[in-house]
Amino acid sequence: MKKLAILGSTGSIGRQALEIVRAFPGRLKVVALAAGNNLPLMLEQVQEFHPVFFSLEAEADRKNLQLQVPECKYLPPQEMASLPEVDLVLVATSGKVGLGPTLAALGAKKQVALANKEALVMAGEIVTAAAKSNGITLFPVDSEHSALWQCLLGEGREIARLLLTASGGAFRDRPLEELASVTPQEALRHPTWHMGRKVTVDSATLMNKGMEALEARWLFDIPLDRIEMIMHPQSIVHSLVEFADGSVKAQLSSPDMRLPIQFALSYPERWENRDLPKLDLAQAGSLHFGPVDVGRYPCLALALEAGRRGGTYPAVLCAADEEAVGLFLAGKIGFLDIPRLVNKALTLHKGTDQATLYDVLAADAWAREEVLAAATG
Amino acid sequence: MKKLAILGSTGSIGRQALEIVRAFPGRLKVVALAAGNNLPLMLEQVQEFHPVFFSLEAEADRKNLQLQVPECKYLPPQEMASLPEVDLVLVATSGKVGLGPTLAALGAKKQVALANKEALVMAGEIVTAAAKSNGITLFPVDSEHSALWQCLLGEGREIARLLLTASGGAFRDRPLEELASVTPQEALRHPTWHMGRKVTVDSATLMNKGMEALEARWLFDIPLDRIEMIMHPQSIVHSLVEFADGSVKAQLSSPDMRLPIQFALSYPERWENRDLPKLDLAQAGSLHFGPVDVGRYPCLALALEAGRRGGTYPAVLCAADEEAVGLFLAGKIGFLDIPRLVNKALTLHKGTDQATLYDVLAADAWAREEVLAAATG
Repeated sequence: MKKLAILGSTGSIGRQALEIVRAFPGRLKVVALAAGNNLPLMLEQVQEFHPVFFSLEAEADRKNLQLQVPECKYLPPQEMASLPEVDLVLVATSGKVGLGPTLAALGAKKQVALANKEALVMAGEIVTAAAKSNGITLFPVDSEHSALWQCLLGEGREIARLLLTASGGAFRDRPLEELASVTPQEALRHPTWHMGRKVTVDSATLMNKGMEALEARWLFDIPLDRIEMIMHPQSIVHSLVEFADGSVKAQLSSPDMRLPIQFALSYPERWENRDLPKLDLAQAGSLHFGPVDVGRYPCLALALEAGRRGGTYPAVLCAADEEAVGLFLAGKIGFLDIPRLVNKALTLHKGTDQATLYDVLAADAWAREEVLAAATG
Repeated sequence: MKKLAILGSTGSIGRQALEIVRAFPGRLKVVALAAGNNLPLMLEQVQEFHPVFFSLEAEADRKNLQLQVPECKYLPPQEMASLPEVDLVLVATSGKVGLGPTLAALGAKKQVALANKEALVMAGEIVTAAAKSNGITLFPVDSEHSALWQCLLGEGREIARLLLTASGGAFRDRPLEELASVTPQEALRHPTWHMGRKVTVDSATLMNKGMEALEARWLFDIPLDRIEMIMHPQSIVHSLVEFADGSVKAQLSSPDMRLPIQFALSYPERWENRDLPKLDLAQAGSLHFGPVDVGRYPCLALALEAGRRGGTYPAVLCAADEEAVGLFLAGKIGFLDIPRLVNKALTLHKGTDQATLYDVLAADAWAREEVLAAATG
């Protein structure tokens, strides 16, 4: 029985992780659930899964929940991550709030399944150093990184390239000149994946793919120049590894996040789950691939450039993007203002190439202010 | 330095294996080379690679070679397979002559790279029992089985299906009614692979794919009903594994036999080899898949049926097919006589479901006579 803390349990990944827990009552047990401000859903989850601990951001929500389920105790997410009774911490929050609990879980030598890409993008060197010094291998949850992980099982270090597949997001077929006027509603219509709002917008800009490259760089300890992207609109091949001998391995499945989530929870086993769709390749007929049109996706180039510069630049990238996407979703800026504002923050930033956790958090705060000022100024 | 015995060194696989040896002079060394009757090529190989031992079938050829290279000594293939100075035996002969040396190599606890599929098809239970009792893992050389092997590295036993890809061979686009009159020259024009003559004809009938299913059944200890075929005319995806959780892994490369040959020689390492082509998936554009039209390929159904019956039936299948393909290549029977003669032999055969090596060899001899009699009678 694997005992779980799920941070971000009311989000898209968290809810799907609980579907997996529901499917394997004899193998997975929830000890702690943390969310932000979705009290009604947290209440349902607590009543169904009976965790020992919960977390919600607002004091009023916590009191409300405890009135209804007094046996479930409040605990801050960071403390959940190091509970002695927890085996595996699923960090499924979005944005920088995942960083603290990730470091806490690694410090407590827990298994860590990481769905929060910002933790690795903004502080990859710090997080992977913490994993290494505690003897922990991070389990990726992103479909692309799960694919790479699966392809690398049993392999040595003779890796020529990692090939991240990109669906191209909501606007892959839109004429470039229309992008200035697309709406948040349009950006949220992803062609193949149902995900959270921020990551769906990041998919439309390909910022998400750029961040995934930085994430892969740290997860698999591969130089960034050996990580490439390839367009694959169907999201069936989730990524590929080319080895030194020219052999390529790929991982495929129907696009359903429950599969990589389950693998991160079941590893090193694989569990049969009839709820998960099976891939019928003969029926799919063809798998299409093509080069990524970098000119169409300025955020991708910005992410790779921030990754090459290293230090505090990736933190600035993440923070600026998070603020800019928030402004776009709130209808306050246009779609093309996202790369413009991120670029401006990166250009103005005076970074260091060796960054402490303090430097990273300071750069994060600076970039957020910078974007908000630039957008409203 | 890995020291090799290559049985079948003048054939297609043997010659390509020597290209790999040539590319890695510091890692591979040839100790023994065996061939049939290609004296001129064996002479070249002996002069280039300086093996300690050679083998040729005809006494006259042996004397001829020893006159020119007196320091290279004759040794029968079976004895090469158990030489103390040999680390790995590559069995790259075609037909039943590979069986004896394979068993000899396993008995001597050598690494065995098996390109000869007949050994496993006709005597899979005996060969795998010998491998198991000697603690040896057979390294497949066939591109499909190498793909499955690579996909299974680091995985447990939670396998839902093995999916063998089939190019469809030379006649995949020919109207069925024309197949009776196709010529050997046409059958030898494989659309994607350059291989030996027998296996190329077996590819056109899909007998090869059926035999591969039986081979996979033994190599990976999987029930035959979990092995399926999928049409993939481009021969870029070499096979796939579907796991219990619905995740699918595939191995891809440009169609070049040197890659799986090298992997069988380099395993557990992967070696960079600039002679091998790299796959450019974005340039390939699309990978096409479709169901296998079983009605078009009676040999495939015959092979699977022989596999289900087990015992001596697969040996009858192999022997009958080898004779029938020989007759077809000699212009003595038509293309559609191949399944007809194999079917006849399987129908007339009175097999046992537990077969000793003696039973297998007797069934082999019986089936050959049966086919020759039926073809000339």
